Amino acid sequence: MSLRRFSPETGIRLWGRRAAAVEEALGRGVADVASTDPAEVVPGADLVLFCVPVGAMPALAERVAPLLDPGALVTDVGSVKAPVVAALEPVFGGRFVGSHPMAGSEKSGIGAARADLFRDAVSIITPGRGALPDAVAAVRAFWELLGSRVRELSPEEHDRTVALVSHLPHLLAAALVDFVCSENRDALNFCGAGFRDTTRVASGPAGMWAEILTENREAMRDAVRSFAARVSEIERLLDSPGEIEEFLARAAAERDAMGVSRPNFS
Amino acid sequence: MSLRRFSPETGIRLWGRRAAAVEEALGRGVADVASTDPAEVVPGADLVLFCVPVGAMPALAERVAPLLDPGALVTDVGSVKAPVVAALEPVFGGRFVGSHPMAGSEKSGIGAARADLFRDAVSIITPGRGALPDAVAAVRAFWELLGSRVRELSPEEHDRTVALVSHLPHLLAAALVDFVCSENRDALNFCGAGFRDTTRVASGPAGMWAEILTENREAMRDAVRSFAARVSEIERLLDSPGEIEEFLARAAAERDAMGVSRPNFS
Repeated sequence: MSLRRFSPETGIRLWGRRAAAVEEALGRGVADVASTDPAEVVPGADLVLFCVPVGAMPALAERVAPLLDPGALVTDVGSVKAPVVAALEPVFGGRFVGSHPMAGSEKSGIGAARADLFRDAVSIITPGRGALPDAVAAVRAFWELLGSRVRELSPEEHDRTVALVSHLPHLLAAALVDFVCSENRDALNFCGAGFRDTTRVASGPAGMWAEILTENREAMRDAVRSFAARVSEIERLLDSPGEIEEFLARAAAERDAMGVSRPNFS
Repeated sequence: MSLRRFSPETGIRLWGRRAAAVEEALGRGVADVASTDPAEVVPGADLVLFCVPVGAMPALAERVAPLLDPGALVTDVGSVKAPVVAALEPVFGGRFVGSHPMAGSEKSGIGAARADLFRDAVSIITPGRGALPDAVAAVRAFWELLGSRVRELSPEEHDRTVALVSHLPHLLAAALVDFVCSENRDALNFCGAGFRDTTRVASGPAGMWAEILTENREAMRDAVRSFAARVSEIERLLDSPGEIEEFLARAAAERDAMGVSRPNFS
């Protein structure tokens, strides 16, 4: 939908695992050609974009590789990058450049699709050591075409960064809902807007998030342990109104600075 | 503002610590009489509502008590109840019934006031053992008049409940912002809507929240420690996609059930 809007001249071919999904995509006009067979969509493509779960990518890559035109580029939208780059770079060589558009919501499925999803979002690209400069430039240009601001990180830097700003917050939101339910289910009857906003992301699709958290488990472990240690330090401040106020004031200033400096993030 | 809208016939007298705040309230027409001297507003009142920080209540109660009419009732809007009831019940006896309207936002000050703030919100009343039944009924009727749904809890039950659904989420939101900043300030440039919603409450007034968290430190300690233990258990699930998916699916179902059953909460 986004490519249709921002680059109507680009031909779009779509592969889907299920025939019903392929039919629905064709019915909505988001692809010129759609099929459950990679051989009907991959040959002739300039850019192949993997939009499947991270765990499904290696097997699909093996099917796609023999069908690719010699100059074709490959990218993906997986939320974890080190395992994806490690699996796909040996298959596609320097023509593969990983991507992670930081956009989406707790909803999933084609019904939740939006043509402006990537506009003003940050898209991270994560070239491996062997990535060809032309491939990096082309993948960058693709996300910029859809309105993203592009940042480049190594796959490992990417995984540590999203563990902090995306995966840890998701795990904490789910843990908070589950913890309150198990401690005192009636407490949910006393929730205000704060609890609802703080836990919104916990409604996200469990299967997708289970894969993200386990694929990124090394960075997640570091993040969870360091965060738990920080919370223990803060707990010790509960006897000291002055110190806890200092901590809260610093956090409020940091939160406000973030909002002000990034008004267009989606 | 809320009382003006839902009960225009009720006379309103306001005490303020600062002359400038008293003048502003009079200028906005939210009170018939306003003064920095309790002696000018307390005598003749049917209901006295303490809207000051929890730590300021005992001293103010001593000034108010000799001015009260014999039948007058007293309540408050403090976010922590056991310390308030322990301090004010000895002063006012069975005519005091603590309250906590679960409404508000990260904003503060008269500019953020809304006449419909309490509408469809839950207001908790926390009668102590000596509270007079007529006083409990009148304080309940007061919050219902403003559109709240009223629930009754003991002061201790209240403090444990709000530790779970309000104070712990606040501490975690502030800790998350502060943790990400200290680990990798650049990571904030990669935030999506999830991080922003999860940490919104961290922008709240630090002084007020420092007092809330320290006044409720016993319930907070229990909540923080139990939550940290739960997070450690979840961390161990990171090796097991099936178990982590089960946990995430349960949290998503609980979160969705909360949203559906409580559509009008503010």
